[in-house]
Formats: sequence, C-alpha cells, structure tokens
Amino acid sequence: MPRPVIALDWGTTRARAFLIGEDGAVLDRKIADQGIQSVPSGGFPAAFEAIAGDFRRARPDAAIVLAGMVGSRNGWVEAPYVACPASVEQIASAGITVALGEGTTVTILPGLSSDEGAFDVMRGEETLIVGLGLDDGIACLPGTHSKWARLEGGRITGFASFMTGEIYGLLRQHSILARLAEEPGEGDATEGARRGFAGAARPGGLLSAAFAARTEVLAGRMSGGAVGPYLSALLVGQEIAGARALYGEPGTVHLVADGALAESYGQAFDATGLSYTLTTPEAAFIAGIKRLAGGLAA
Amino acid sequence: MPRPVIALDWGTTRARAFLIGEDGAVLDRKIADQGIQSVPSGGFPAAFEAIAGDFRRARPDAAIVLAGMVGSRNGWVEAPYVACPASVEQIASAGITVALGEGTTVTILPGLSSDEGAFDVMRGEETLIVGLGLDDGIACLPGTHSKWARLEGGRITGFASFMTGEIYGLLRQHSILARLAEEPGEGDATEGARRGFAGAARPGGLLSAAFAARTEVLAGRMSGGAVGPYLSALLVGQEIAGARALYGEPGTVHLVADGALAESYGQAFDATGLSYTLTTPEAAFIAGIKRLAGGLAA
Repeated sequence: MPRPVIALDWGTTRARAFLIGEDGAVLDRKIADQGIQSVPSGGFPAAFEAIAGDFRRARPDAAIVLAGMVGSRNGWVEAPYVACPASVEQIASAGITVALGEGTTVTILPGLSSDEGAFDVMRGEETLIVGLGLDDGIACLPGTHSKWARLEGGRITGFASFMTGEIYGLLRQHSILARLAEEPGEGDATEGARRGFAGAARPGGLLSAAFAARTEVLAGRMSGGAVGPYLSALLVGQEIAGARALYGEPGTVHLVADGALAESYGQAFDATGLSYTLTTPEAAFIAGIKRLAGGLAA
Repeated sequence: MPRPVIALDWGTTRARAFLIGEDGAVLDRKIADQGIQSVPSGGFPAAFEAIAGDFRRARPDAAIVLAGMVGSRNGWVEAPYVACPASVEQIASAGITVALGEGTTVTILPGLSSDEGAFDVMRGEETLIVGLGLDDGIACLPGTHSKWARLEGGRITGFASFMTGEIYGLLRQHSILARLAEEPGEGDATEGARRGFAGAARPGGLLSAAFAARTEVLAGRMSGGAVGPYLSALLVGQEIAGARALYGEPGTVHLVADGALAESYGQAFDATGLSYTLTTPEAAFIAGIKRLAGGLAA
C-alpha cells in the first residue's frame, strides 16, 4: 500500500479501529463502545476523533476507510448498496468520500444487496469476504444474523442471512425451554451438541426438534445443562443445511469466526462431514481493507 | 351413554367444563380461569367444585371425567403417560380414579408419549384425537405447541410437537422483526400469507426466510403490516412441511381448530394443495370423552 490506513469496522453497537502500516502490518488496534446508534445527528466527525484521533496524530498521512453500518441511512453518510454480483473494484469504487476538515477525507464503503428469491443486505461483512481473497467458494460468517456468500470468478454473486444467533437468544432467554436450561456441567456440551446435530438432521425440522429439548429433559433423558448446547447445535445445523440447500455442496467452507462461534461451527462442519478453513474476523477485515484500499488508490 | 358425564379439559391456564346428557347432547358449558397452575396443593376438590359444582347439583348421577394437565405431576393426581401405539381402550383403562367424597369418584385420563426418534408427550390432545373417530389418518392440532398425530388401525401410533405458536410470539414480540411490524392494513394479510407460504417453500429454511421479513420491508417491497401474516404463514408452512417429512403425504389432514387458527391452517393446506377436514376443539373433545367414557364403562 502506498500509504498507511486507518480502518474502522463501525457497526451498530461497537467500532473496531485499526492502524495499518504501509507494509500491511497492524500497528495499533482499538475496540470502542461508540456504535453508530450512540452517535447523535451530526456527531460522526467528533465520534471518529474520539475513536481514532490517536491513530491520526500518530500517522497524519494515513488514508481513512470505514466499513459497516456507518454507511447506512442512520450512519455518517449513506453509501448505497452495490447489487450482487459485485467485484472488489465495484465495491471499492462505490465508496463515498466525505471531508473531515484540513484536507482530510474519509471513505465510507458500501454494503451489498442480493436478490435471489429473497432480497437481502449486508454491511461490513462484504469487507471480510473480500479479505478471504477467494476467486470461487462459499464463505460463512456466523453471528446474530449469520451470512453465507457465494463467490464466482472473483465476484460475490449472492448471499443469504440466517437469524441463527438471534433465535438462539430468544429460545434460550424467553421460551418455555429457558426454564429448563441450566449451566452446562461435565459432558453436557458434548452430549447437547451430539443430540442437537442429530436433531438438525431429523425430518421434522426446527420447530419440532426445538421442542424435543423440553420433552427429553422432562423424561430424564437429557440434563438441563445440555439444553443450551443442544439448541446451539440444532440451530447451527439447520443453518448449514439451509445454506447447502441454497448453494449446493460447498466442498470447503471458508469460515470467518473466532472464539465460541469458531468452535461451534467447526464442530458442526465436522459433524456434517464438511471441510473448512478458518480465518479470524480481524484478519479477514484487515485483508479486505487492504484489497479495497488498493482498489481505492487505483 | 348409560349416564350423563361432567367432562373437563383442564389445562395449565384454563378449564373448559361440559355437562353431557345421556343422549350425548351438551347440556351446559363453562370456561373457567382456574388452570391447574392456580390451584394450591390439595386444592383440586375445591377447585373442581368451584368450576363444576353447578353441573353436579344439576345431575348428581353424572360420571366425572377429566383430561389435560390435571393428570400431570403438578395436577390432581398423576396419570402416567400411555406409550404409543395406544388404542382407545388402552387410554380409557389407564385413567386414574380418585374419590371426591360421598361415594363420588373422578376419573383422570392419562396423556400419551411417543418415541420415534424424539421423545414427545401430550396431555388433553389425545382426547380430541380420539374424538375424530378415525381408524387411519393424520390429525393436526395447532397451537402454542402444535401436535400432529398418526392413526393406524384405530390406534394412535405416533405424534410430534412443533413450537409454531410460541416461536411466532417470540419473533413477533421480541425479535428485530417486532420493530418493523405494524397493524395489518388493507391487503396485508393476503400479501403476507402469500409471501410467507412462498418463503416456507424456499430451500434456505426458516432461519433464512424469517430474516427476509426485515430486508423486504426495509427495501420497501413489503409493508410493515404484512410482517405478522408473513411470519405466521412461514411458520405454519414450515410446520406442515416438517409433518409431511415425518408422516409422508397425508392425503387428507384432519384439522382440529377454530377461529384464526382454523383460518390460517386452512389457507396453508390450500396453498400446499392438501385437502383437509375441520373439526372444532369442542366437538372433538366432546366426541373423545364419549368414546373414552364408553371405554370406562366397559
């Protein structure tokens, strides 16, 4: 890269900021609570300064690139969605430039839209997907609203969201199953996961298999501690089955995750006999910013 | 029937009581708020008197038959589950008799258990299913936890529960979709149902199709008023698809429902090209009690 880059993955509830040197190394990083929902109207320049002012003073020559919900209607400036199929160059060139004062500009990257049967959108994940550097393949980005994306010939040709994380939270916190769930004890994680993956493979579907958590516990055949792991494995298994139905057999899935999500999705791929690569969200984001900043410079 | 019958469908939050004459006609009916969760330990005789004392004074010679959660561990007396396959005679003869004083006894009917891949239980629905009078067929009882049951040779040979109603409530009240949902306006019910049935038929599954409610509304392609009907149709469609996967093509489904549930399930069967019969829960319960009381007398 010709210049250092200050890059933010600026979402609804949080911002992750990185200072990337000319050689591509991460020189500094910061996680801030100033998600875009906490920024008042007109307050984005000040919020950016609060998050990344240190980075700017350290490297006043750095380019500034922002990804995520900061480019939404409720963000700094709306960067309209780029429709799939979308190349790296198309995403980079749809970035919106805003002035920050003193001749400095900020580039806000767009999100993507997909329209294959169901309309869908993403903001921020496109940068991580670009960071995988794939020409062809299937990417999986787990979370509250997991994304699966298909890449063909270097372009993102379509994607779909899954409410996996959110529905897990609803079942775990607010459903009739919440009362039965206990802290996992010895062996509960393994037992719950085994049963959950089996449940995802049964023909009755999610609505039926979720209820089995209740009846199996009431019958004394599963412990309360296994309820959470069961629901997690069931939902992840259903997500993977849905993605396979949409995108066909992926061969290898390119998983972008860390921590507990990396572990549970890795187990799920193992259980379904799928091979996968694992990239952390930070590594994917940094690599994506480098590719997109290269596109910006070009 | 040799004697009149006082019959209660006594659930967790409510009791429905009926006085049935020797000729099988319903002479009186009552819906009471005294669900079993509101009855203190040892308080069932008094609660029964409060609900059905009038019926007893009117017909002191009546047999008394109770179905539902009143036979659970938290009820009056636990009537252990009868394992499927279960005949009408087996269900009737597993009723537990308790003394009510002055020579009067009360029969508490058992629930059923099923163990085909997943363990499952019901209490109360078995009486409605018996009331359909089917030798062979598939019954559908929609609700918070819908039940589908298979009958073969006059026996209930297996069943499965679906969390359809509960997950609808969670999505409609507590999810990210709740904020987008508005009161249905002109045409919203039809449009939401059409899209929901289509969503249920798409390959990505429930977790993906539920999220589409959000993106379609944000894109201005669906109104906020259609979100509720969309989710209802999507979930009912998924339930029906799951039941077909479990039980094969039913030919005709025997639906036990009234009101809004009868309407939405009827639409769903029409949309999926399934024929169905419709019986109200009250009619099915009364008919079931008559058959089971006949078994008791025998």
